[in-house]
Amino acid sequence: MKRKLEKITLREVDFAQWYTDIVLNADLIAYGTVRGTTIFKPYGYAIWENIQKILDAEFKKNGVKNVYFPLLISKTLFNKEKEHIEGFSPEIATVTKVGDKVLDEELYIRPTSEVLFGTFFSKEIQGYHDLPLLYNQWVNVLRWEKTTRPFLRTSEFLWQEGHTIHSSKQEAQQFTLKILDIYATFAEKTLLLPVIKGQKTEREKFAGAEETYTIESLMYDGQALQCGTSHYFGQNFSKAFDIKFSNQKNTLEYAYSTSWGVSTRLIGGLIMTHSDDNGLVLPPQIAPIQIMILPINNDNDEQLFAVEQLQKKLHKYRCEIDQSDKGFGFRAANAEIKGIPLRIEIGARDLAQQQVTIARRDTFEKITVSWTEVEKVVSDLLDQIATNLYQRALDNRHQRTKKIDNYSEYKKTLAKINGLFLVPFCCRIECEDTIKAETQTTSRCIPFDVPTKKTTCFHCGQPATNLVYFARAY
Amino acid sequence: MKRKLEKITLREVDFAQWYTDIVLNADLIAYGTVRGTTIFKPYGYAIWENIQKILDAEFKKNGVKNVYFPLLISKTLFNKEKEHIEGFSPEIATVTKVGDKVLDEELYIRPTSEVLFGTFFSKEIQGYHDLPLLYNQWVNVLRWEKTTRPFLRTSEFLWQEGHTIHSSKQEAQQFTLKILDIYATFAEKTLLLPVIKGQKTEREKFAGAEETYTIESLMYDGQALQCGTSHYFGQNFSKAFDIKFSNQKNTLEYAYSTSWGVSTRLIGGLIMTHSDDNGLVLPPQIAPIQIMILPINNDNDEQLFAVEQLQKKLHKYRCEIDQSDKGFGFRAANAEIKGIPLRIEIGARDLAQQQVTIARRDTFEKITVSWTEVEKVVSDLLDQIATNLYQRALDNRHQRTKKIDNYSEYKKTLAKINGLFLVPFCCRIECEDTIKAETQTTSRCIPFDVPTKKTTCFHCGQPATNLVYFARAY
Repeated sequence: MKRKLEKITLREVDFAQWYTDIVLNADLIAYGTVRGTTIFKPYGYAIWENIQKILDAEFKKNGVKNVYFPLLISKTLFNKEKEHIEGFSPEIATVTKVGDKVLDEELYIRPTSEVLFGTFFSKEIQGYHDLPLLYNQWVNVLRWEKTTRPFLRTSEFLWQEGHTIHSSKQEAQQFTLKILDIYATFAEKTLLLPVIKGQKTEREKFAGAEETYTIESLMYDGQALQCGTSHYFGQNFSKAFDIKFSNQKNTLEYAYSTSWGVSTRLIGGLIMTHSDDNGLVLPPQIAPIQIMILPINNDNDEQLFAVEQLQKKLHKYRCEIDQSDKGFGFRAANAEIKGIPLRIEIGARDLAQQQVTIARRDTFEKITVSWTEVEKVVSDLLDQIATNLYQRALDNRHQRTKKIDNYSEYKKTLAKINGLFLVPFCCRIECEDTIKAETQTTSRCIPFDVPTKKTTCFHCGQPATNLVYFARAY
Repeated sequence: MKRKLEKITLREVDFAQWYTDIVLNADLIAYGTVRGTTIFKPYGYAIWENIQKILDAEFKKNGVKNVYFPLLISKTLFNKEKEHIEGFSPEIATVTKVGDKVLDEELYIRPTSEVLFGTFFSKEIQGYHDLPLLYNQWVNVLRWEKTTRPFLRTSEFLWQEGHTIHSSKQEAQQFTLKILDIYATFAEKTLLLPVIKGQKTEREKFAGAEETYTIESLMYDGQALQCGTSHYFGQNFSKAFDIKFSNQKNTLEYAYSTSWGVSTRLIGGLIMTHSDDNGLVLPPQIAPIQIMILPINNDNDEQLFAVEQLQKKLHKYRCEIDQSDKGFGFRAANAEIKGIPLRIEIGARDLAQQQVTIARRDTFEKITVSWTEVEKVVSDLLDQIATNLYQRALDNRHQRTKKIDNYSEYKKTLAKINGLFLVPFCCRIECEDTIKAETQTTSRCIPFDVPTKKTTCFHCGQPATNLVYFARAY
C-alpha cells in the first residue's frame, strides 16, 4: 500500500529475482500463508478478470456454456482412468477428515475435472441428438508443486477448464483444434505473445489424452512457456466412464471427448515477455488501467480541473487520475512500475500551451499533443504500443530460434544461449527422457507449419518422425 | 438433456418434493458424486452469472475491488480467533495428505476467509492513509452440512465474501449497513424478493462478529430464508490478527473490520418464492432467457423466417428460438418449466393477421399483439411481470405475518401456519435456545423499522429489549 517503491533487480543480472521484484512491486500478489499459495491483490486480479472477460465471450460465441462442478472427487472415481491417476497422484491434496470425524473415503481436491465431467456425461447423454455438449468452468484447482513461483507454478491456481463431448471423432478433433486457434489468437492479439501452435510428443502429452495440442511462447530469457493446451481424448474417458450414446444407426457407441485450459500462468507469461527494468509492461487490451493522468502539481486547482476534463474526454478508456499526496516523480514511477501503457501529464506549461504531455510506457518516448488531438493520438499510441510489444517479443524469439541437427551442436548451443531449438526427433519417450536428464530441456511441440524431411533423430540417430521444438521451459 | 418432462409434485401437497422436482426438471443442477455436492448445469449457472454481474457492478461502484485469496487455511491460523473456530470447526473439511505424504500441519478448506484477510491486512496496512481497504472475492467455500438440499444447504457452495478494514468504528459500521442496503435493493428490485432488514440476535450472529445484519425473506410455504448478511467485527479480528495502523494522532490503533456475503442459496430463494406447479418462474432481470420464441410448426419456412425476424427485432433482450424437433406442446411446456418470463408463438393464423401471440409465464395470460407493437408490449409485459412477482410475494408475506405477545398463542399459531411472528423478546441466548428446542423456530432479525415498546418477553416474561421476528427457517 502506497509504500516506497523498492529497487528492481536488473533483468540481465538475475532474471528470476527480477521477475519476483516485478510481481511484488507492481502490487500483483502477496504470498499466502500456506506454502506455494498466493493472494491475488486487486491489481493482479483485475488482469485475470480482463483475461476472463475476453476469453469467456469468445467461448460463448462458439457455443460453449459455463457450468460449475464440485471441488472434491472421491478416490474411487479418480482411480477409474489409470493413466490419469498416475499422472496426478503425487500432487493431489487429500481430505481425510471433517471436523474430528475421519471420512469413510478419501476425497481429492480437483487437480483437473475430467473424471467428474465424465461421470456426468455418462448419465446425461442418450442419443446423438444430445451431442455435442460444450462445457467450461472458471475455477480453482490444486496441484502440489515441489518448487513454486507466483503465477507460473503454485499449489493452487485459477484456470478455465473446458470439457466437451461429441458424437464423432472428426468433430471432437476439429473442436480440439478450434479451441487451440482461439487460444492462439487471444495470446497473439490480446496478450501480444507470439506463440507456436503444435502437438505435444508422447512424453509431454496430458495424462489420459490421445493427442495434446499446445501454444508455446518464448520468454525474454529464452525459456519457453506452455500457454494453453487442448486435449483430444478419443474414447479413452468414454470407455473408463461408460459414456455411450445411441448413434444414427441406433447402435450404442462410445462418445469422443476433449478438454482444454488456460490458467493464471498467462499473467506470468505477460510479465516475462514484455516487462523491463522499470517494472511491469502491460498490453493495452489487458491493462486494468490503460491511461494514468497526472497533474504535475497536485495542489493546483487549474491542473486538477484540467485532469478531470481530460478523464471525461477519454471515457472510452480505462483511465485514472493519480492526485495522491505523493510527489510527481513518485507518481510517475508508480505508473511505470505498474505497466500502465500511457501516462499523460498536465503541468503549468501544458496548460499555458493548451497541450498535454504523453509518455509511452514501452519506449519511454514523451510527446506533447494539443488538447484537441488527444483522443486521436491516444488511440494511435495504444495501437502502436500493441504492435511494438508483439514485434519486440517476436524479434527476441527469432534471435533465439535455431535449427540444429546433431546432439553435440545442441549441447554446445545450449551452453551459450537459451532458446527454441528445432531438431529432427524420433519422438520416442526413452530418447526424450535421456535428453531431459542430460540437458534439462524438453520437447515443446511438433509445430504444425514445419514440413518434415526424412532424416535421423538429432539425439539417438534412429529415424526421425518429425521436426520438433526443444527448449528449457517454465 | 431433451428428456421427457417429468411430472412435478404439487406445491401444496409436498413443498420439499415440489422444490426438488423444479430444480431437476428445470435443468438447474445435477447431484454430484460426493455427498452434499451439486453440479451447476448451464441453465442453473447462467442464473448465478446474472446475479454476479449485477452485484459485482454494484460493489465496484462503491469502491470495492475484487481479489482472490487461497482455498486452504492452516490449522494454527484458523485457531487464532476463538469464537470463529468454535462456530465452524465441526463443518470443516481437512486436508491431511498430499499424495502419500502426510502433511506436517493440517490444512482447512475455507468455510469463510476472515482469518486469511486478517493476516493479510495486518501486513498490508501501516497508516490511516492506507485505509479503508474494500475487498471482495467470488469463490467456492465448504461447510459440511448434515442434511443438504440443492442451493439451500450444500457441502460446497459458491458465494461472494467481502472483507473490508477501516480506520474508524463509525466508518466500518456505516459500510456494514451500506452493503446491507445494496443486498436489500438487489433482492427487492432484481430478484423481486421482499426482504426485511434487521440485526441478528446474540444467538444468531456470525461467529466472531460484534453485530450481524441480515436481509430475511419469507418463502411461499411460510418458512424464512436468510438471503444475505453483513457483519461488523469491531476490533475483534484486528486484535486476534494484530491489524494495527498509525492514526492521525500518530499512535497505533487496532483497525475496524467488516465482512459480508451472499451465496447461491439466493437461487433457492427465487425458486421457493416465485415458482409454481408448472415449474420455475424467473424474474425478468435474472432470467438467462427472457423470451422464448416458438414457431408453432417448426417445419414451416414462413414461420421459421418470421421467428428469426422477431428475434432480430427483440435483440435488446436475451431471446431464443426453440425450433427443436419436438412438438409445439412439448416446447411450450419446456419454456414454462424453465420459467422463461415471456413465450412468443407464431403460427399460420398469426402470420395471416400480422400478429404474434404472447404468453406470460407468471399469469398464463395469452394476448395477441400486432407485429408493429411487439417491442413496446414486450417491454411493458416484462415490467408488469416484475411488479406482479414482487407483489405476489409481498402479499404472501403479509398474510403470514402475525404480531404475537405470548408463548401459548405462539405455539397455537405455529401449529396452524408457518410465517413470520413479531414478538417482544428479551434477546437472551438461553431463552432463544429453549424456544428453538421447543418449537424449531429461531429469531430471524430485530427489524430496523419497528419501534420497541416497554414490555415483557413473549417467552420468559423478563423485560423485552426488542420486537423480534421469529420463524421456521431454511
